[in-house]
Amino acid sequence: MKNKNVQIAYIGGGSRGWAWGFMKDLALDGDICGTLRLYDIDENAAKTNAIIGDRIAQHKDTKSKWSYLVASNLSEALSGADFVVISILPGTFDEMQSDVHLPERHGIYQAVGDTVGPGGLVRAMRTVPMFAYFAENIRRYCPNAWVINYTNPMTVCVRTLYEIFPQIKAFGCCHEVFGTQDLLLSMLKTQHGYDDISRSDIHTNVLGINHFTWFDKASCKGVDLMPLYADFAEKYYNDGYGECDGHGLNKSFMCRHRVKFDLFKRYGLIAAAGDRHLAEFMPPWYLKDPQTVESWDFGLTTVSWRKEDLVNRLEKAAKLSSGEEEIILDPSGEEGVLLIKALLGIKSLVSNVNIPNMGQIPNLPIGAVVETNAVFRFNSISPVMAGNIPQNLHSLIIRHVDNQENTVQAALNCDYELALQVFLNDPLVNLPPQEADVLLKEMLANTASFLPKDWKCSKC
Amino acid sequence: MKNKNVQIAYIGGGSRGWAWGFMKDLALDGDICGTLRLYDIDENAAKTNAIIGDRIAQHKDTKSKWSYLVASNLSEALSGADFVVISILPGTFDEMQSDVHLPERHGIYQAVGDTVGPGGLVRAMRTVPMFAYFAENIRRYCPNAWVINYTNPMTVCVRTLYEIFPQIKAFGCCHEVFGTQDLLLSMLKTQHGYDDISRSDIHTNVLGINHFTWFDKASCKGVDLMPLYADFAEKYYNDGYGECDGHGLNKSFMCRHRVKFDLFKRYGLIAAAGDRHLAEFMPPWYLKDPQTVESWDFGLTTVSWRKEDLVNRLEKAAKLSSGEEEIILDPSGEEGVLLIKALLGIKSLVSNVNIPNMGQIPNLPIGAVVETNAVFRFNSISPVMAGNIPQNLHSLIIRHVDNQENTVQAALNCDYELALQVFLNDPLVNLPPQEADVLLKEMLANTASFLPKDWKCSKC
Amino acid sequence: MKNKNVQIAYIGGGSRGWAWGFMKDLALDGDICGTLRLYDIDENAAKTNAIIGDRIAQHKDTKSKWSYLVASNLSEALSGADFVVISILPGTFDEMQSDVHLPERHGIYQAVGDTVGPGGLVRAMRTVPMFAYFAENIRRYCPNAWVINYTNPMTVCVRTLYEIFPQIKAFGCCHEVFGTQDLLLSMLKTQHGYDDISRSDIHTNVLGINHFTWFDKASCKGVDLMPLYADFAEKYYNDGYGECDGHGLNKSFMCRHRVKFDLFKRYGLIAAAGDRHLAEFMPPWYLKDPQTVESWDFGLTTVSWRKEDLVNRLEKAAKLSSGEEEIILDPSGEEGVLLIKALLGIKSLVSNVNIPNMGQIPNLPIGAVVETNAVFRFNSISPVMAGNIPQNLHSLIIRHVDNQENTVQAALNCDYELALQVFLNDPLVNLPPQEADVLLKEMLANTASFLPKDWKCSKC
Amino acid sequence: MKNKNVQIAYIGGGSRGWAWGFMKDLALDGDICGTLRLYDIDENAAKTNAIIGDRIAQHKDTKSKWSYLVASNLSEALSGADFVVISILPGTFDEMQSDVHLPERHGIYQAVGDTVGPGGLVRAMRTVPMFAYFAENIRRYCPNAWVINYTNPMTVCVRTLYEIFPQIKAFGCCHEVFGTQDLLLSMLKTQHGYDDISRSDIHTNVLGINHFTWFDKASCKGVDLMPLYADFAEKYYNDGYGECDGHGLNKSFMCRHRVKFDLFKRYGLIAAAGDRHLAEFMPPWYLKDPQTVESWDFGLTTVSWRKEDLVNRLEKAAKLSSGEEEIILDPSGEEGVLLIKALLGIKSLVSNVNIPNMGQIPNLPIGAVVETNAVFRFNSISPVMAGNIPQNLHSLIIRHVDNQENTVQAALNCDYELALQVFLNDPLVNLPPQEADVLLKEMLANTASFLPKDWKCSKC
Repeated sequence: MKNKNVQIAYIGGGSRGWAWGFMKDLALDGDICGTLRLYDIDENAAKTNAIIGDRIAQHKDTKSKWSYLVASNLSEALSGADFVVISILPGTFDEMQSDVHLPERHGIYQAVGDTVGPGGLVRAMRTVPMFAYFAENIRRYCPNAWVINYTNPMTVCVRTLYEIFPQIKAFGCCHEVFGTQDLLLSMLKTQHGYDDISRSDIHTNVLGINHFTWFDKASCKGVDLMPLYADFAEKYYNDGYGECDGHGLNKSFMCRHRVKFDLFKRYGLIAAAGDRHLAEFMPPWYLKDPQTVESWDFGLTTVSWRKEDLVNRLEKAAKLSSGEEEIILDPSGEEGVLLIKALLGIKSLVSNVNIPNMGQIPNLPIGAVVETNAVFRFNSISPVMAGNIPQNLHSLIIRHVDNQENTVQAALNCDYELALQVFLNDPLVNLPPQEADVLLKEMLANTASFLPKDWKCSKC
Repeated sequence: MKNKNVQIAYIGGGSRGWAWGFMKDLALDGDICGTLRLYDIDENAAKTNAIIGDRIAQHKDTKSKWSYLVASNLSEALSGADFVVISILPGTFDEMQSDVHLPERHGIYQAVGDTVGPGGLVRAMRTVPMFAYFAENIRRYCPNAWVINYTNPMTVCVRTLYEIFPQIKAFGCCHEVFGTQDLLLSMLKTQHGYDDISRSDIHTNVLGINHFTWFDKASCKGVDLMPLYADFAEKYYNDGYGECDGHGLNKSFMCRHRVKFDLFKRYGLIAAAGDRHLAEFMPPWYLKDPQTVESWDFGLTTVSWRKEDLVNRLEKAAKLSSGEEEIILDPSGEEGVLLIKALLGIKSLVSNVNIPNMGQIPNLPIGAVVETNAVFRFNSISPVMAGNIPQNLHSLIIRHVDNQENTVQAALNCDYELALQVFLNDPLVNLPPQEADVLLKEMLANTASFLPKDWKCSKC
Repeated sequence: MKNKNVQIAYIGGGSRGWAWGFMKDLALDGDICGTLRLYDIDENAAKTNAIIGDRIAQHKDTKSKWSYLVASNLSEALSGADFVVISILPGTFDEMQSDVHLPERHGIYQAVGDTVGPGGLVRAMRTVPMFAYFAENIRRYCPNAWVINYTNPMTVCVRTLYEIFPQIKAFGCCHEVFGTQDLLLSMLKTQHGYDDISRSDIHTNVLGINHFTWFDKASCKGVDLMPLYADFAEKYYNDGYGECDGHGLNKSFMCRHRVKFDLFKRYGLIAAAGDRHLAEFMPPWYLKDPQTVESWDFGLTTVSWRKEDLVNRLEKAAKLSSGEEEIILDPSGEEGVLLIKALLGIKSLVSNVNIPNMGQIPNLPIGAVVETNAVFRFNSISPVMAGNIPQNLHSLIIRHVDNQENTVQAALNCDYELALQVFLNDPLVNLPPQEADVLLKEMLANTASFLPKDWKCSKC
Repeated sequence: MKNKNVQIAYIGGGSRGWAWGFMKDLALDGDICGTLRLYDIDENAAKTNAIIGDRIAQHKDTKSKWSYLVASNLSEALSGADFVVISILPGTFDEMQSDVHLPERHGIYQAVGDTVGPGGLVRAMRTVPMFAYFAENIRRYCPNAWVINYTNPMTVCVRTLYEIFPQIKAFGCCHEVFGTQDLLLSMLKTQHGYDDISRSDIHTNVLGINHFTWFDKASCKGVDLMPLYADFAEKYYNDGYGECDGHGLNKSFMCRHRVKFDLFKRYGLIAAAGDRHLAEFMPPWYLKDPQTVESWDFGLTTVSWRKEDLVNRLEKAAKLSSGEEEIILDPSGEEGVLLIKALLGIKSLVSNVNIPNMGQIPNLPIGAVVETNAVFRFNSISPVMAGNIPQNLHSLIIRHVDNQENTVQAALNCDYELALQVFLNDPLVNLPPQEADVLLKEMLANTASFLPKDWKCSKC
């Protein structure tokens, strides 16, 4: 039976973090098992993860024993796959260093720098060709597989897959919505004395685009959360809510929801992503300079932090694979395995997803990748009608939708002029065109080794 | 707490059948209770049902004790209602006698005669004004209530509610889709040895209009049912499948699915209603004459049967209310109570529903009432994107969509010429215009006592 | 300069009639000249027409001297062409004999038999592959040429060109709208004493599909013609208007506009085609049998008449080419040359045209070929927003739109089942499915020599 | 006959400039005459214009003698009108002083300040209620009249008319497109030696919104102007083209088309308005500060200049009415009279127009007021399909479309929060929200005497 022999290809299978979480979730499930084929351009990393996978399989609490293989090339990973997971780092942290920090010289600060803004655009220029390549290989080796993307820039990645292979069955998953649902959960618990509720009790209508998506309805067990949230946002507007949310590590990931509360007061809907992401979609109200950022109680995630963190994770990988460190079999909090099970027909699910708009948001363009709820069932994802973006938010969102559509085209066609138009149209980029041109060229030059050779590098 | 004090208005609360089933389902639930306000133009019938309701409440297996009130007028029923159920017989069986059987003189046979065809049109002429009146009163007395319609012609009734009160929160429920899901269930059990599955395991994508809706996807626990159904339809194409499905009573309701199998072979999708309904939406391939009907193994439900049945049901009502007959507390098989609970936020549900198209079927007109799946959650019904009607079926369906849109307008404006255009455009009506004109006028004359006085009766 | 060296390819250049008219119109123009390349599968016919063309060029009243070449193959005709005219007879009158008259055995009468109905469908089956071939060659040899189609079934032919080569600049011209404008002209002259007006003074809003298009607005020099037409239709409803319009030849082409008047009384818009065409789009109200046709005062054009007429035209061709018969340099009444001049930028024009819907009729599907007005300017045809098809007419029209979309697919894919679905969905075909199946197979067999070999002829 | 008794109401009939031009155009026409009813809140100004009108009527070259009446109230002006012209100054130059110059304190410079930007928004707040009032009166007194608006902000004014009275037959006329057509004409004459051509020979496809509309196609007598314009823009990119275009008066109106050339080089389409308008729709690339403006060779029109100019025009009005100054009967260059004649059925016209989008630009929202070509015929304006806004321009344009939609709602509902959202979303407003709030409140306070009393003035 299929459920006992599920073939999953994992592109970016050497990842230290996502891959571990995914392997643990598979082990904890109990309903499905099969083979996970780890593919990574860093083959040794994939090998290490296969060893870690085997150790997970041997853990006493494991419910499903999966096989972990290392695929030495993409075709080997993809051939016959039922599912493809894509979770890669496009380029290295050196490229990301330029993406995130070079614009600071021109007064542009980014809290994450991987979605929109200067960093998101330049990251897309190197990521889109990779996803075009994935799409071509998926068409060739496993056209019927379901493809789950976790890579950023999410919207642009998923859009590229469909642009290259329109019949692909791909979707993007992101946990930012879950984070906001957790905030609502926390609100109910701390402000209203609820216990015995979990995130799955929080029902939200999701509409927007990844990292800039919104709730216009939220409820929990028959209680309308919108008025409660209005009080909550008012109460914590000035001081913020909750501890530093920095993976327990530092202020780099801090999010005390004050950006979210400010957006709620202005626009009336609940912005459903971390403040670090949300701030990047707006004019530099929150990201004007580090002082402003600090005043809004969220963090700028530096790439130097990421580099240090990577050192730690490499060390952890070595320990986990050698057995020096015990495997702790805890769930990741992601829904990937639940979605796979829903697509296998085991248990239906309504969850948020990033897929092309076929009308679920009537006033965004058909074909653009949007984030809404969808019903996941056997071999099908049916978006739930989310309704129109409210008129007062429409311009804020479609500006990025248009930019993302143009980003994909600029990347696929190595079209510098179009990339510059996107850059100039980004709300964080308030530069004169000449200065923007200089900055963009320098940023592209810094990522040149990951760009197709059709980018004439004299130019960029 | 709301769930313990739910106010439900039941228009048509004297019904012998639907009302009993609904009261039993409420009693069997256990999660909600409150008051059911029975309103009926036959107030005695409502009173009888209130007594029966009280007896249900006293039944030993009852989990929820509801109060049953008789509302002596519509405003009393509606004021403060959280939900409104509409389940009426528009006119009497005398009018229905004319709707169904008068066209036989002109060679037009109808198996049900309450949805489309001559009978559906004329029934709509008297029903639409009633629903316009309901909509006005709902706007006035309980504009925020959820309105559940069970009355036929379903599409036209729901469309009228929205035409008159566009902000209404109304939807139509119909069990025909369940019947086809049950057929798939039966197929799995009898042909493939499944047991331990129930209708809720059958997942279907629903697209179309009430009584002429279709499945383009069907699965059960990870098994694609479409190829199985193809074999099934082939195997039973000539002889039909299953026993007479005539409420155990007579051939009047027989449906051995041969019309359904024929439609599948021709169009490739599973038609999701009883054969008696399906046949009425097509040209008279299946309804040419009684011999043809018999050859396709389905029944023509006569109004004389309905009249007899009513006598039995009246008798049963007397016995149930007097206590001469025991209350048997069995579930109705309808989902009304589950939907109410979902809308109260108790338990989400994905089910089929009849509501205005907001894009869930992109190639049908916006605003027309269509049948698809929807997610029912706290205070919201979000249609699931069903996708386009396949091109080869589009004309068959939109012909009725257009007719139904025109039917509502003809009824609201007492526009005979438009009604005649609808009549002539119905696939069952292959009459020369002059003959159609004569027939329609006679049919309208027979229902004149239920028509608004703006219909100039000299004309019709 | 371009205007003095216009290259026009004429596919079907051996035609006796259209080609002569077109050559005369070119000669009478005075603004443009160049070369007309006549291509025909009957090369001798093209040669005869080239001789006739030379004689036209030598006529004393000729204003533009064109060169007439015979192209011995399609590539020679198309290479470097600025314009392509397509005016062919798909198959011979023997095939048309079957198209038009075989259905009579089953009680289906057709007045023309080249657009919809059984004849239109079967004609399409052989014509669509020809147009697919033309489209492929146009893409290869003259992708920037403007392509003017005069061939029936018009909608299906133009739709095929776009299906195969979506960037094609093709459109269809039809004089039926002009005929109805002439009727309005005649009405003004005879009923209201106007003189000194011409067809170009009649302004109409055109909406629909070829041979079933409608005017919802009509005016002449500031006078609203709709109320005048209402009186006119009333006055001549019973007796019809005008003489036999049979090319002065016989009753075969008679049209006394009674069908048009009846449609106006029923639906409120002016149907803008000859009655012979209009009747074929409706249920058999007007075409029930020859007596009914006669009672509505229009003609059934027999193919035997066409065959006789061809003999006469062949004789005339011989005489014209030999010089035995004088060339009479009269205008054809067609607008082809005016449209070519508009596209060359010489003189803009608003006229009716058949092109894919890009929203000019919002409630018909995007991409379907519709007939509306358009602005013809230099190298561009911009449709004029025609507005929605009125709700009461929508079903009548979209039924044919759907059928035509399916016709193209059935023909391109040699899909008999789909062709049969179209057939059964045609309003003229009120046959049981089995009988329809027999008839369609026989009709296809009769045209088999013009069908692609992928049609399995054992089947059809 | 109607054409000899045309009733035109002129709201803003005291205008010194537009009204004179319009009266002269009427006098010069020869085809129509009737009565012009001048209505103005400054009744004396209307009286003066009536006297000037009489003097025009007595001019020896006058072809049509019109009557000029002063209407002392709106109902008198409108009752029985066939056409309504609206050309008003909303508020006085004192309010405009604040609109245009107050933002300069915050570093925001505006070249005109009447369309978008801070000035356009605040002007809209006082203008929309006036147009709501006009719409209500038109519905009451002349619902079938054609309404021609010349007032800015054009889009917002026309949109308000339709919002209040959806059946209104209103449209907006603007000569900025003509100006760009004149530039193309000048290009042909000076660069390519054309003579004997006029603006009516320039054919353009128009798509966009008023003052920010674009040509994607342009031709003249069969010559494609797009490549010629590319060379032209290149040649004059650095130095600009043409003399100061300042009504011969001063640099205030200068436009040497360098903004237009820059936009062409960036986006590939011809922006079709004066540079002063275009610059206001973009981020402050061209309007950063007066030095930047000067470097781009266009003018900032100061309100002090307008005030001085008004003094001159008042003086001129006195002289014209007293006879001290001779009437010079020259055409205005506007098309208003031609459009009126087209709507009367005298002569059809294709021209640009501002009306609600019904699909003429498919990728802008239905209902938003857009500028495209339209066919003007008897009693109808049919937009010409303009096609999609190119993807790279879409975001620039829809940002303003959304802002304008929100502007109308903010003004009608006296909704300060929404107005502030529009303000913050304007590309010229790169202010922190708090600073924007302060500025907007001050600007609104300055125009408070023209705002509805529902604006709580403590707030603004």
